[in-house]
Amino acid sequence: MQLGIVGLGRMGGNIARRLTLAGHSCVVWDRNEAAVQGLAAEGNTPAGGLEDLVAKLDAPRAVWVMLPAGGPTEATVKALAEVMSPGDVIIDGGNTFYKDDIRRAAELAPKGIHYVDVGTSGGVWGLERGYCMMIGGAKEAVDRLDPIFAALAPGLGDIPRTPGRESRDARVEQGYIHTGPAGSGHFVKMVHNGIEYGLMQAYAEGFEILKKKDSTDLPENERFTLDMADIAEVWRRGSVVSSWLLDLTAIALTKDDQLSDFPGAVADSGEGRWTVMAAIEEAVSAEVLSAALYTRFRSRQDHTFGEKLLSAMRFQFGGHTEFKSK
Amino acid sequence: MQLGIVGLGRMGGNIARRLTLAGHSCVVWDRNEAAVQGLAAEGNTPAGGLEDLVAKLDAPRAVWVMLPAGGPTEATVKALAEVMSPGDVIIDGGNTFYKDDIRRAAELAPKGIHYVDVGTSGGVWGLERGYCMMIGGAKEAVDRLDPIFAALAPGLGDIPRTPGRESRDARVEQGYIHTGPAGSGHFVKMVHNGIEYGLMQAYAEGFEILKKKDSTDLPENERFTLDMADIAEVWRRGSVVSSWLLDLTAIALTKDDQLSDFPGAVADSGEGRWTVMAAIEEAVSAEVLSAALYTRFRSRQDHTFGEKLLSAMRFQFGGHTEFKSK
Amino acid sequence: MQLGIVGLGRMGGNIARRLTLAGHSCVVWDRNEAAVQGLAAEGNTPAGGLEDLVAKLDAPRAVWVMLPAGGPTEATVKALAEVMSPGDVIIDGGNTFYKDDIRRAAELAPKGIHYVDVGTSGGVWGLERGYCMMIGGAKEAVDRLDPIFAALAPGLGDIPRTPGRESRDARVEQGYIHTGPAGSGHFVKMVHNGIEYGLMQAYAEGFEILKKKDSTDLPENERFTLDMADIAEVWRRGSVVSSWLLDLTAIALTKDDQLSDFPGAVADSGEGRWTVMAAIEEAVSAEVLSAALYTRFRSRQDHTFGEKLLSAMRFQFGGHTEFKSK
Amino acid sequence: MQLGIVGLGRMGGNIARRLTLAGHSCVVWDRNEAAVQGLAAEGNTPAGGLEDLVAKLDAPRAVWVMLPAGGPTEATVKALAEVMSPGDVIIDGGNTFYKDDIRRAAELAPKGIHYVDVGTSGGVWGLERGYCMMIGGAKEAVDRLDPIFAALAPGLGDIPRTPGRESRDARVEQGYIHTGPAGSGHFVKMVHNGIEYGLMQAYAEGFEILKKKDSTDLPENERFTLDMADIAEVWRRGSVVSSWLLDLTAIALTKDDQLSDFPGAVADSGEGRWTVMAAIEEAVSAEVLSAALYTRFRSRQDHTFGEKLLSAMRFQFGGHTEFKSK
Repeated sequence: MQLGIVGLGRMGGNIARRLTLAGHSCVVWDRNEAAVQGLAAEGNTPAGGLEDLVAKLDAPRAVWVMLPAGGPTEATVKALAEVMSPGDVIIDGGNTFYKDDIRRAAELAPKGIHYVDVGTSGGVWGLERGYCMMIGGAKEAVDRLDPIFAALAPGLGDIPRTPGRESRDARVEQGYIHTGPAGSGHFVKMVHNGIEYGLMQAYAEGFEILKKKDSTDLPENERFTLDMADIAEVWRRGSVVSSWLLDLTAIALTKDDQLSDFPGAVADSGEGRWTVMAAIEEAVSAEVLSAALYTRFRSRQDHTFGEKLLSAMRFQFGGHTEFKSK
Repeated sequence: MQLGIVGLGRMGGNIARRLTLAGHSCVVWDRNEAAVQGLAAEGNTPAGGLEDLVAKLDAPRAVWVMLPAGGPTEATVKALAEVMSPGDVIIDGGNTFYKDDIRRAAELAPKGIHYVDVGTSGGVWGLERGYCMMIGGAKEAVDRLDPIFAALAPGLGDIPRTPGRESRDARVEQGYIHTGPAGSGHFVKMVHNGIEYGLMQAYAEGFEILKKKDSTDLPENERFTLDMADIAEVWRRGSVVSSWLLDLTAIALTKDDQLSDFPGAVADSGEGRWTVMAAIEEAVSAEVLSAALYTRFRSRQDHTFGEKLLSAMRFQFGGHTEFKSK
Repeated sequence: MQLGIVGLGRMGGNIARRLTLAGHSCVVWDRNEAAVQGLAAEGNTPAGGLEDLVAKLDAPRAVWVMLPAGGPTEATVKALAEVMSPGDVIIDGGNTFYKDDIRRAAELAPKGIHYVDVGTSGGVWGLERGYCMMIGGAKEAVDRLDPIFAALAPGLGDIPRTPGRESRDARVEQGYIHTGPAGSGHFVKMVHNGIEYGLMQAYAEGFEILKKKDSTDLPENERFTLDMADIAEVWRRGSVVSSWLLDLTAIALTKDDQLSDFPGAVADSGEGRWTVMAAIEEAVSAEVLSAALYTRFRSRQDHTFGEKLLSAMRFQFGGHTEFKSK
Repeated sequence: MQLGIVGLGRMGGNIARRLTLAGHSCVVWDRNEAAVQGLAAEGNTPAGGLEDLVAKLDAPRAVWVMLPAGGPTEATVKALAEVMSPGDVIIDGGNTFYKDDIRRAAELAPKGIHYVDVGTSGGVWGLERGYCMMIGGAKEAVDRLDPIFAALAPGLGDIPRTPGRESRDARVEQGYIHTGPAGSGHFVKMVHNGIEYGLMQAYAEGFEILKKKDSTDLPENERFTLDMADIAEVWRRGSVVSSWLLDLTAIALTKDDQLSDFPGAVADSGEGRWTVMAAIEEAVSAEVLSAALYTRFRSRQDHTFGEKLLSAMRFQFGGHTEFKSK
């Protein structure tokens, strides 16, 4: 079927590619003209702007917006709403805060335009492996777009089936899910990313404990010099902690077990923050997800004001001056 | 090759079974006579006691002790050391604290008896999937036992290979690793379990945030009723958080998405505690691993003294009495 | 000077009392007629409603709103704005979220009405000890209200003076501070409460560690039965952890060192949550403040879905069934 | 009464001074001859070594060891035990791990020598304010030393009395407590320090949230530039978070509200670590005390291996390269 795509960065471009491979027909636009021409050369229909893109689609239309969350997506959704028609669907495939989805769906409803939010996991591996998608929106719109989602999803592959799913929604095993009304797709994706932070931090702490086991601060007969790359590898094979993130860890450590390309300042995206805020709104104790987030905050600083204050208090009550000359 | 096995519980019994299937020959003993007879019926050689077991093995012997950590293992290692000979190997396959391994290896060294510690992951799935093993001990002893480890390990299977491992230790890809001297096997396994706690807690928090998204404490238009089982399933397929623990989560939630069989009091074993203590000894900030442990501590209590104290302080400074009548 | 007071609960009533004692003149109103009559009997001028209250004040007027944050305060501020005049001041002395203050001040500005937010600490002890106040708003308005703040503040008392404050704002030593523009008073008060949560939790954990030192899970020669009330008392006297919260702890523990009046379910107010959210917005690692909040969340639940999920995973990978029968 | 003092650093020296002022008579020794001469010039009796010190005391003797925990204290206790007599008392006033106290008391018991452990809080302010002391040991020995403890303790001072203490141990209000058998004094002091870490961290986080409220990452109308020194001061006066640590914070911030003398690398002593380990042994969830400890660990590092691993994973799954060039 036909799909308009706005935003041809790595994610948007790969979505067009995967859909084209599956026989779908994409009309593409990006404010970067080179990106449009590149996709056109791969068999997609180039558009000259949002209006042109909408004009090149048959009603009822569907346009997938794949832009940075916040301003760029908001502006595009608004502009599309001006030129689209009742029965059309706007899909936000970015990392939008789910409360913005709820608001937008309510704003578009009077115009008869559907709003569908798609949380997409899979990263740079998605073109090859397929994208795991969490989809919020009206049933009618989501069902109509099924061929698109089916083509983007990874499919059953060789992942073992979970027993007892026979009577359940078959789409889920293909790697996409209709989670509920607008906003719910991005909400589930947001929590997914929160979990991701927690998992990553659990591995990070574990490997750091392994790594520092050769510290000269330890008694000599209690020190071990452990092989990080081999340990990551062996855990991939039959252990309880095997995971895709561990697969990636093994790749990284095999390449360089000192990880010297990585200074250690770790970015965080909105999802980790929003997940903790959602936990607080629900009165859920999210110790691990918060700690994972805070580690990233701390990783991007040299010394904090709080740490200086700790030293200042120690100086006041104990006369501890060891650090003044450091 | 020949192996003596002491301790025929689920783990010890399955190890004997997997070795027998692979053509090895096991001499087995347990203080539970029925367990011995059961294994004998499956083709293993029964022994009448430790001395008999040692007598039924050809030198240089290897005896795998698969007993609860602490007293039972300690007593058995000591007793075996009395009846074994220079060049023999005692293997501790249980969950021993690694500092006990270091001590035991040093105690056995003057007798010429090798001590090998094997941290084993794989749980009840090990008989079928194979065991991921982390092995500490002298190279000579570990190398000699290679056929045993190779038979117990899961092998390559259909897990994708990590690029760049061509020149590395081939055993690791088979699912077992010689981590270093005595104690290092259990140390690595201990950290593995610490990570396991952290991973589990990350999923637990995430699913709780999803679950409570239908709370009536939230604004009505921000509530979602989400399908826990379907979300676990979809994340198995192409998402960043896919893992074996998530596979198990999907199985459990598909069976009963209320998890009503599980009251929620969660046990912790020594490894989680020891991992945090190791982190502290190394001055590693193990926020996530600690939080995961503390959640289990808290899950097993009704109300803590600390919580009562919080209420008491609130009453003192604010006259907050709302909970007095509860 | 004259002050209107709306909301005659414990806080509002005590503020009127403390101001009357200091020679100020209060016009009071509450929708609870009995509260109005009670305060009238203590020498305050009763009003029959907001309009009447405003009419009974001379311009430029000042009305202190002491109501629950959220709806009640919002409605009252809006209603007052309708009947007040340019140059008047509306004071919000409640626990309003500071972003609401910022918004309200902006909404009132075109009408020439000042908005002053006062974060007030001191709880039930305030009538006697005085209130520590953190005040946001325009300098002109805050300065004009100085006699009110001076009367409510605790004053220098016998608290030792901090060296080097000679050239600094003298009001601060009296126990009130003009923190900056509207919203900043409640922001500082909010962080104050966040810190309060952290301090309380530090004591709670410490006393729990002391309390459980007699646990039969510990080796017999490592158990101590400690006197909670005496320890709280001794720490008040020359130790590094002495504080007002510890004074209150000593009072509570001396009354009943089992704290049996307190079931242990601990409420949390908005400030603790907002403080953590503010930390996240600023990318500050607020581990302790978050953990203190999460403990309260957890204290109000029996078992969480997350904990059940941990048990369910353990059952899947390890066959751990110990808790099924519990 | 007479007291021997070994170890004349700041703490040991001040203890001698405070005792001398109170009319007691100290025999002092330190391997630093100048320290001995200094104290001798202040009226104490100098000793030429441990044996001489013991010889200069009348039986039953009491010797206060005020040395770094671990090796120095251990060696001195052992050496004193060689030259002291049944009925004598060895006092360890340092920061010894309480399990070492338990062991030492048991080792000295057959010789009839008492072992008393004194946890001492008060830091550099102790000479002037007096020391808060937590004392473990046999009743007989602790009672005999009462004049010493009474002289070192701060006494009632002007700290308000806690209601209901009339029938309780009067020593506690003077600032010293007999907590139980040997080891319990240092155990209580250890937990005291754990709490201290938690309190300090709560303030540190709160002030950092205040400080960063002027961050340009925040929306312009939500920024405040707050006065750290004034806020610390105002909270000392009637607020719920007033404490001695806050008094010290106000002193430090008034001197320099940028705290530029303090680089921010914060040391931790054994007590913080031991407190967390004690919590784990007792299965107490010590989130806040652990987080406070971990912050100090992290403050002393540039970037951790764990943080690099987070970046490495992000690079693998998302191609996030932003930090590679940093």
